[in-house]
Amino acid sequence: MSDTPKIVRPPHHLVDGIRAMGAATASATLAHMGLRGAAITGPVAWTKGSAVAGPALTLQFMPKREDLYGEGEYMDVEKQLHRHVLYHVEPGDIVVVDARGDMRSGVFGEMMMTYFKGQGGAGMVIDGCLRDWPNIAKLGVPLWIRGVTPNFHTQIDLMPFAVNGPIACGGVTVMPGDIVVADDDGAVVVPAALAEACIAKAKKDHEWEDFSREMLARGGDLRRYYPLSDAARSEYEAWKAKRAGHDPSR
Amino acid sequence: MSDTPKIVRPPHHLVDGIRAMGAATASATLAHMGLRGAAITGPVAWTKGSAVAGPALTLQFMPKREDLYGEGEYMDVEKQLHRHVLYHVEPGDIVVVDARGDMRSGVFGEMMMTYFKGQGGAGMVIDGCLRDWPNIAKLGVPLWIRGVTPNFHTQIDLMPFAVNGPIACGGVTVMPGDIVVADDDGAVVVPAALAEACIAKAKKDHEWEDFSREMLARGGDLRRYYPLSDAARSEYEAWKAKRAGHDPSR
Amino acid sequence: MSDTPKIVRPPHHLVDGIRAMGAATASATLAHMGLRGAAITGPVAWTKGSAVAGPALTLQFMPKREDLYGEGEYMDVEKQLHRHVLYHVEPGDIVVVDARGDMRSGVFGEMMMTYFKGQGGAGMVIDGCLRDWPNIAKLGVPLWIRGVTPNFHTQIDLMPFAVNGPIACGGVTVMPGDIVVADDDGAVVVPAALAEACIAKAKKDHEWEDFSREMLARGGDLRRYYPLSDAARSEYEAWKAKRAGHDPSR
Amino acid sequence: MSDTPKIVRPPHHLVDGIRAMGAATASATLAHMGLRGAAITGPVAWTKGSAVAGPALTLQFMPKREDLYGEGEYMDVEKQLHRHVLYHVEPGDIVVVDARGDMRSGVFGEMMMTYFKGQGGAGMVIDGCLRDWPNIAKLGVPLWIRGVTPNFHTQIDLMPFAVNGPIACGGVTVMPGDIVVADDDGAVVVPAALAEACIAKAKKDHEWEDFSREMLARGGDLRRYYPLSDAARSEYEAWKAKRAGHDPSR
Amino acid sequence: MSDTPKIVRPPHHLVDGIRAMGAATASATLAHMGLRGAAITGPVAWTKGSAVAGPALTLQFMPKREDLYGEGEYMDVEKQLHRHVLYHVEPGDIVVVDARGDMRSGVFGEMMMTYFKGQGGAGMVIDGCLRDWPNIAKLGVPLWIRGVTPNFHTQIDLMPFAVNGPIACGGVTVMPGDIVVADDDGAVVVPAALAEACIAKAKKDHEWEDFSREMLARGGDLRRYYPLSDAARSEYEAWKAKRAGHDPSR
Amino acid sequence: MSDTPKIVRPPHHLVDGIRAMGAATASATLAHMGLRGAAITGPVAWTKGSAVAGPALTLQFMPKREDLYGEGEYMDVEKQLHRHVLYHVEPGDIVVVDARGDMRSGVFGEMMMTYFKGQGGAGMVIDGCLRDWPNIAKLGVPLWIRGVTPNFHTQIDLMPFAVNGPIACGGVTVMPGDIVVADDDGAVVVPAALAEACIAKAKKDHEWEDFSREMLARGGDLRRYYPLSDAARSEYEAWKAKRAGHDPSR
Repeated sequence: MSDTPKIVRPPHHLVDGIRAMGAATASATLAHMGLRGAAITGPVAWTKGSAVAGPALTLQFMPKREDLYGEGEYMDVEKQLHRHVLYHVEPGDIVVVDARGDMRSGVFGEMMMTYFKGQGGAGMVIDGCLRDWPNIAKLGVPLWIRGVTPNFHTQIDLMPFAVNGPIACGGVTVMPGDIVVADDDGAVVVPAALAEACIAKAKKDHEWEDFSREMLARGGDLRRYYPLSDAARSEYEAWKAKRAGHDPSR
Repeated sequence: MSDTPKIVRPPHHLVDGIRAMGAATASATLAHMGLRGAAITGPVAWTKGSAVAGPALTLQFMPKREDLYGEGEYMDVEKQLHRHVLYHVEPGDIVVVDARGDMRSGVFGEMMMTYFKGQGGAGMVIDGCLRDWPNIAKLGVPLWIRGVTPNFHTQIDLMPFAVNGPIACGGVTVMPGDIVVADDDGAVVVPAALAEACIAKAKKDHEWEDFSREMLARGGDLRRYYPLSDAARSEYEAWKAKRAGHDPSR
Repeated sequence: MSDTPKIVRPPHHLVDGIRAMGAATASATLAHMGLRGAAITGPVAWTKGSAVAGPALTLQFMPKREDLYGEGEYMDVEKQLHRHVLYHVEPGDIVVVDARGDMRSGVFGEMMMTYFKGQGGAGMVIDGCLRDWPNIAKLGVPLWIRGVTPNFHTQIDLMPFAVNGPIACGGVTVMPGDIVVADDDGAVVVPAALAEACIAKAKKDHEWEDFSREMLARGGDLRRYYPLSDAARSEYEAWKAKRAGHDPSR
Repeated sequence: MSDTPKIVRPPHHLVDGIRAMGAATASATLAHMGLRGAAITGPVAWTKGSAVAGPALTLQFMPKREDLYGEGEYMDVEKQLHRHVLYHVEPGDIVVVDARGDMRSGVFGEMMMTYFKGQGGAGMVIDGCLRDWPNIAKLGVPLWIRGVTPNFHTQIDLMPFAVNGPIACGGVTVMPGDIVVADDDGAVVVPAALAEACIAKAKKDHEWEDFSREMLARGGDLRRYYPLSDAARSEYEAWKAKRAGHDPSR
Repeated sequence: MSDTPKIVRPPHHLVDGIRAMGAATASATLAHMGLRGAAITGPVAWTKGSAVAGPALTLQFMPKREDLYGEGEYMDVEKQLHRHVLYHVEPGDIVVVDARGDMRSGVFGEMMMTYFKGQGGAGMVIDGCLRDWPNIAKLGVPLWIRGVTPNFHTQIDLMPFAVNGPIACGGVTVMPGDIVVADDDGAVVVPAALAEACIAKAKKDHEWEDFSREMLARGGDLRRYYPLSDAARSEYEAWKAKRAGHDPSR
Repeated sequence: MSDTPKIVRPPHHLVDGIRAMGAATASATLAHMGLRGAAITGPVAWTKGSAVAGPALTLQFMPKREDLYGEGEYMDVEKQLHRHVLYHVEPGDIVVVDARGDMRSGVFGEMMMTYFKGQGGAGMVIDGCLRDWPNIAKLGVPLWIRGVTPNFHTQIDLMPFAVNGPIACGGVTVMPGDIVVADDDGAVVVPAALAEACIAKAKKDHEWEDFSREMLARGGDLRRYYPLSDAARSEYEAWKAKRAGHDPSR
């Protein structure tokens, strides 16, 4: 059990491209590509303002069975699988945990989270809870979770069961090595094999969006400015030219 | 479908009177008037510290049916009814949305919300979610919602269905033109026809409340000061006289 | 009904000892002592950063029955039992309320909470909601609740029923006089009779934890430093000696 | 703990009168008397076709606390409070149990239920489950429960806590000695003090209902026959006279 | 309010064709046609063995508001909209009710259901409950409901609001005049405009299914017989020929 | 994917021994052995009166991801993993399915179930639904499920993902080859390695239970007869002797 599989990380430029999109654009683009349910539901942004993307290391909990997870695990800490997922952490990685939505199990505490941060972990997405929040809060690790609890991970109903296998998290199947992108909207799973196409599809020209936003903020007509109508295109061109004239880089 | 009905707005002094009461007083007063369930349950104050009141524009979502809401809606944006409710927005209006409590549908995103703000909208109450929260947060629009999601409005299970008709939002029937009052306690629906009576009923003399609060804060006896007992009335009169003496406006 | 029982408060040193542990250590230690479900689930830290411990005064709500809780209670405020639990408050006490998880009943409002603070109450844990949050927020009373609502306590489905009897709160049986410890992780019930043993058990030597945390934060190996391995013990001793050398109190 | 209080049983004619009304008429009549929530929600008719009424013996479960309910209870069976409620059973009694809606605790098994039947118990209403259903089914005891489970009563999260005190069952407060009436529509709690008035109120003349039912079944107009319109009254009188003529008892 | 709209009924041959398919085939066929969520979830077959299809008459409930549904409705029964949907019933019709999943409101009782049967109604689908089940059961009307209750329709939280408008029932949008097909699998909504295509699509050759079922029942290989493999086709042809030989109608 | 692992079946005498205990005794005995949560919660006895035990074949569903489960699966039926679990069925086997509690996915239909019966399958436990119930009902296969639906297995949110691996079903971890015992109380998972000890532990002398049941049924004292008291032992011995005297086999 203690020799858990490694993951294959996607190329950095794909992770960077997905991070630049943000969760909302990633989810919508995947939906238009035929993958309608890529957004994790349940875990929410717990550290407001964070925005990360990275490859998924996965940890799976299962309902506790005393014959499968007994006293031995407490004796020999190396048998505790929730430790093992952390051994795999490289800078930029995101740990994704299926804790079955349980509100009475704190998957990690302060010491484990300190180690995770020390290894350069980018963030965690947990379909469940953390523990030791008064201390974890100080670490500043980006987190998407359901909540916090004083209980430890195996105190009530769960046991850690597998590392870097497929899991379900918040209603989404996550494969190890998938790219997870998360911000205040929530977390989205981008299959590694679709990342390139997803980035390409989202790069459609939205250059007029800054213009439209400015017009709408001034009380402009939604029908005229969003999406940009033909009637407003010359107005937009003028705006763009003017802005270019003010561009100090010219 | 695209010619949606207008609402009849209640007079400004009624909206102002309800706003001055706040959500808690409005809900309690309506309860004492025989309308016990005027408080919307589910959507919560998302922008803490906001306090608004205004006439309700309504938007109803229904379970998606591909035969009723198809590709055409994506082609012709003017067929998208969630846009139409925004066309009605006048300064001070509140958009109330029945999104069926769905946590996987983001009713509006940044551009729509920018337009809403540009039109002077006072706030939104949504039995469901928004999308693009990292950007919407910057707009400072007062919001009472269930949460946020990366998904767009018709990505999973819903379709916009009607504008400015009766809706149910958080367990309360809302008629277009009703006055919605919302603050950190939540949102309350005041039927336009009851607003005048509701304001009058709440205007019962609570002048001793400032005195009582001060006494309770100092450790005064609850039985003596809340509600104000006969035994404490002369003490209160003295306090009032003294405060009047210190009044710089005299 | 209006002559409600007093509670027996545990000795101050026990309350202090439990407070020093915090909720997470209390919950885990009780679990290792055989009491696996001491953490209240549902009510969450509403006033982030608060950390309190104190003896429990209890208030129980029951489903409203008009024949048991009628107009009389509104006439004669002294018959309203939610007032009576506050009459018992001494400095440091914690009021724990079984409001049945109801999201449509605001157990206390601003005036009652002002009185509670005036009496020196340490905090409240409510399996339900408060009302008047825009005003209560200013009082700074530490709170663990499910939410807030504009409704008052008996507006919809509940009636106050008993004071200082046994209650269930968030899935935990609470006996009056138990020690409640609460922080951002949530609230935990420590039976008064187990407090001494719980404190003793938690006082096991964790002196190396500061060292381990520092090492983990620097990217140290989890296997080496948590728990402290034999291989790292001499390193730890050196660290301790060095820190002692820098101790300005020497 | 083992000396549990007796209940005061209402007079037989009241129990008989309520039984004759049935659950639906009892609930509606109480609602019209101002007691709108007398129907227990959650427990359903498990033994279809049963119809009973009788005084309520009550049993309350609470979340298990190992310090309050320990090994001793298993050693000394007389400490197990769920036995004690059965000691009170007299012919016609109904045992009502607050098992907190728990689906993993079987309140009674075959032997206890055999004893209950042997004592003449009229039925049970349990906000929770039974155990040993393959055997209990053969006893034919009328039951309103949430379900069945292989688990025994204290196997997971609950402990029996009190006998013949006030309880909440399926969202209704039940006082010991209240009259419970139950049939395939569910169970309704009639406060003993309201039984007489409830019976009287329901005895309003519905003699035309048999006539109306017959007319509606033949396709008669709802507006004409339900409630009986003035236009149909002479038709009804004729029907009544004719039926009287056929009455073999005349 | 009391002059409610009529529906347009689909041609009989379409209703007959959909009825012959049954709920499972209708749901799957619509899914393959792009309408993936046509099955109503929540209401279940209450009268086991029934199988019906017919045009939908619709009734919508909304959260009760005392200012919109007051004493007048009790005085003047003709203002009670749940009666009006029944006035429209023609033989073969199915009444579909959005009762908001409420478990404390009994939409119809015995007298209304007797009238419905007298008019030739084919069945009802209710996202909520009925009342008077001990008597309704005897009528034998096919029913898909969530449960039964002793409460009447407006006793707690609902009021009837509209007749023969669009409703949501069990997560499906139902338009008046849609064809509802229901059996022990549940109820499915077939949009009237898709019925013809749905029937045609389902009529694809399944003649080998009887053969395959017989083979599988005897322990035949799933790979060989379902779907019918090329390898088994000659075996099937022989089986068909033999059966034809035994056909007494030849 | 299509070459799924076989299971190791426990010896027949263990399966027989567990079957003889029934679900309630198995669950209680395992609890007393330290395995407190062996009873599956959610799926209920759908075919009342069935009682089975057998080794578990397992099938796991996961949230649907269009990139992992695409059109190919519909084209090549051999890629559909829910078929593969059936290929493993030997007489007496029980198929256990984690369908994630989904109420909109029918795991198997009539043809698959016919094949299962043809192979001698003993029963199925599904944390989810079946489809084609009007036809499956006629097969008489013992079933423990959450419900039925007209939808097929991948119609909405799920895809079959793995066969004969560990699964969670109704809150219990099930390992392939575990013994599942199920009757009207529900289904219980007996780990194969604990079966022998479980049977031995349950074989404690309960010979007096028939006597006690008879006494309790006649109105005997619970304290005297259950458990059998010392005071009643001689009475029991007499009963036993008398019964032996009547034994026609002597």
